[in-house]
Amino acid sequence: MKVATRAHVPPFAVMEILAAANARRAAGVDVLNLCAGEPSTGASEVVRQRAVELLTSGDLGYTEALGAPGLRAAIATHYRTWYGVDVEPARIAVTTGSSGGFMLAFLAAFDVGDRVALARPGYPAYANILRALGCEVVELPCGPESRFQPTVEHLEAAGPLDGLVVASPANPTGTMVGASSLADLAAWCAEHGVRLVSDEIYHGITYDADAQVATAAQYLDTGAVVVNSFSKYWAMTGWRLGWLVLPDDLVAPVDALAGNVALCPPALAQHAGVAAFSPDGYAAARANVERYAASRALLLERLPELGWTHVAPADGAFYLYADVSSTGLDSVTWCARLLDEAGVALTPGTDFDPVDGHRFVRLSFASSPDVVREAVDRIVRWQGTLTA
Amino acid sequence: MKVATRAHVPPFAVMEILAAANARRAAGVDVLNLCAGEPSTGASEVVRQRAVELLTSGDLGYTEALGAPGLRAAIATHYRTWYGVDVEPARIAVTTGSSGGFMLAFLAAFDVGDRVALARPGYPAYANILRALGCEVVELPCGPESRFQPTVEHLEAAGPLDGLVVASPANPTGTMVGASSLADLAAWCAEHGVRLVSDEIYHGITYDADAQVATAAQYLDTGAVVVNSFSKYWAMTGWRLGWLVLPDDLVAPVDALAGNVALCPPALAQHAGVAAFSPDGYAAARANVERYAASRALLLERLPELGWTHVAPADGAFYLYADVSSTGLDSVTWCARLLDEAGVALTPGTDFDPVDGHRFVRLSFASSPDVVREAVDRIVRWQGTLTA
Repeated sequence: MKVATRAHVPPFAVMEILAAANARRAAGVDVLNLCAGEPSTGASEVVRQRAVELLTSGDLGYTEALGAPGLRAAIATHYRTWYGVDVEPARIAVTTGSSGGFMLAFLAAFDVGDRVALARPGYPAYANILRALGCEVVELPCGPESRFQPTVEHLEAAGPLDGLVVASPANPTGTMVGASSLADLAAWCAEHGVRLVSDEIYHGITYDADAQVATAAQYLDTGAVVVNSFSKYWAMTGWRLGWLVLPDDLVAPVDALAGNVALCPPALAQHAGVAAFSPDGYAAARANVERYAASRALLLERLPELGWTHVAPADGAFYLYADVSSTGLDSVTWCARLLDEAGVALTPGTDFDPVDGHRFVRLSFASSPDVVREAVDRIVRWQGTLTA
Repeated sequence: MKVATRAHVPPFAVMEILAAANARRAAGVDVLNLCAGEPSTGASEVVRQRAVELLTSGDLGYTEALGAPGLRAAIATHYRTWYGVDVEPARIAVTTGSSGGFMLAFLAAFDVGDRVALARPGYPAYANILRALGCEVVELPCGPESRFQPTVEHLEAAGPLDGLVVASPANPTGTMVGASSLADLAAWCAEHGVRLVSDEIYHGITYDADAQVATAAQYLDTGAVVVNSFSKYWAMTGWRLGWLVLPDDLVAPVDALAGNVALCPPALAQHAGVAAFSPDGYAAARANVERYAASRALLLERLPELGWTHVAPADGAFYLYADVSSTGLDSVTWCARLLDEAGVALTPGTDFDPVDGHRFVRLSFASSPDVVREAVDRIVRWQGTLTA
């Protein structure tokens, strides 16, 4: 029987690392997991408590396809309090994680054959979803000279485009698109009829108090789409809850598509998710960010010992993307040997960048500072054995 | 800015009915809702209780893309106990509702341009998802002569095909594909290289104890795919939990696609969903089916009063699909006037059948028998005013 050509998604190298890590664990040997892009804390107490109440007395049936009205209103308020941007609740589409949001946004905005640009390195699911939907992915080679982010120059050089996906803070690099760069990209997209899709799932997880964190929700008038999530800042990964902020022309299409491809996002997560925007919900999220900040400070302090000279500035998210090629090993081998010889799991850069990723690894510092400290100790020791 | 052509999903007539029903309710006038394909009871006590425990002490992070191992094992066991069919847990993919299952199955099996057949009337999301994914939908006109189900004759007449979607019990008709018909369809598909996708989300909701309920999980060896859900039999609509049973050749593609398009199904629903397969979980589901059976008996008993002569045999699910054209009204007008003049909301057949649906309406008897009785009283009275 035929399998669809579009189902041939390239495998992730990290899956081999995770399988090896699990085998190691099963054999009783410890492993420090710095692979996962997942906060280790889980949802805040106030969200969990609200969910318990709803399980006792709530209606957990289908909600509206675009989400429960109370949650859409809470998200809209979040834009006013965080960014000072007015967004009507009618522009918010609650989605099944940001994954569900990308699927809906891409289906609504791009047809088969449309050309959509995105940064390399980048989160591989963007390209994999787009290709599965029949779109042509245009990889923009973004190096340290543009902080691994796309610029108008990249776009000018890319040929005719229908869409652009930007992520700030980005996975795997943690770098950000500043307010003026975002304005430039949005203006260029508006001028050229290119749909801007802005992945903002790491918003809130930033380390410079003075950094201007800009949202593309300012550019709805010129067609921009925002994708966001409860998974990272609010540490609600397994709840599968995210949202889109939509320009006028995409509200009705996304509503119609959502009713068909998803019916509605998980009801309990939606109703309980309103509590994420309570003072206790924000406070729990901020406490997580403080923990990531402590781990990040520790990492940056020990960079000289690690000897990683080409490190992306980890302005946000909880990743350090570093060039390890001075060890003489490609990153897949480097990661496999690090796990085997020192019990630390990192992600090879090849999962994010098929061209230059063999030089880079991604270290996630979403776990506790103690784990990160111990991991750095082990990596430093292990790297010492390579040159010995 | 361009909106994707594929985003132009036809609107559902029922949305107008629901909006009018909500407006009526907001004005303080009562409405009996017989539109929704949704059990009114919600998840069983044993599932809710397990979810409460997990919220206190459980890990609600990402699970494996194909689902938590415990749930996959429980689903596999369900195939042995219900159908006597051996299915390895590795063949089970847990999905975000059956909606997520259809998306994954269609992406894995069908490329842009592939021709996929399905019955008309039928659940409109099949066609809408397929078209959004660039597939060509081949509608098979299935009338009362084949109990609204596709036959080998329909397939022979359809031209070259890549796929066939069957649903048994079907929405909106409630009719079933018998064991021998399913065997014939599966054999024809195997012979012609056509991927069979079997929607079995209403399994368990059937009314003839002697009926052979056949699963396409018997035909995995020849490439068949089963789609199922916790939404209907287990009344867990808003939990967004379903599953696929996959043939060998689709396991790896669905795994890779799921990791990209969904990451994983909702974690709490998955872990708590294991309890649906406990004795208490099955008992609660059976009690719901007894309630539907009571409503169905009441409806069938009063069919002569309703005067609906062309009624699909409601062998399963909780729908009555009936020809109301003898009233002289098309079904959209019939439904709008019934709501306006008698406060009962039904779904026009046009949502399920663009050709003949103007003669039919779908009545859902998933709500309580009291509501169904009162609704029949009102419909009978209101229809009397039409001929007066």
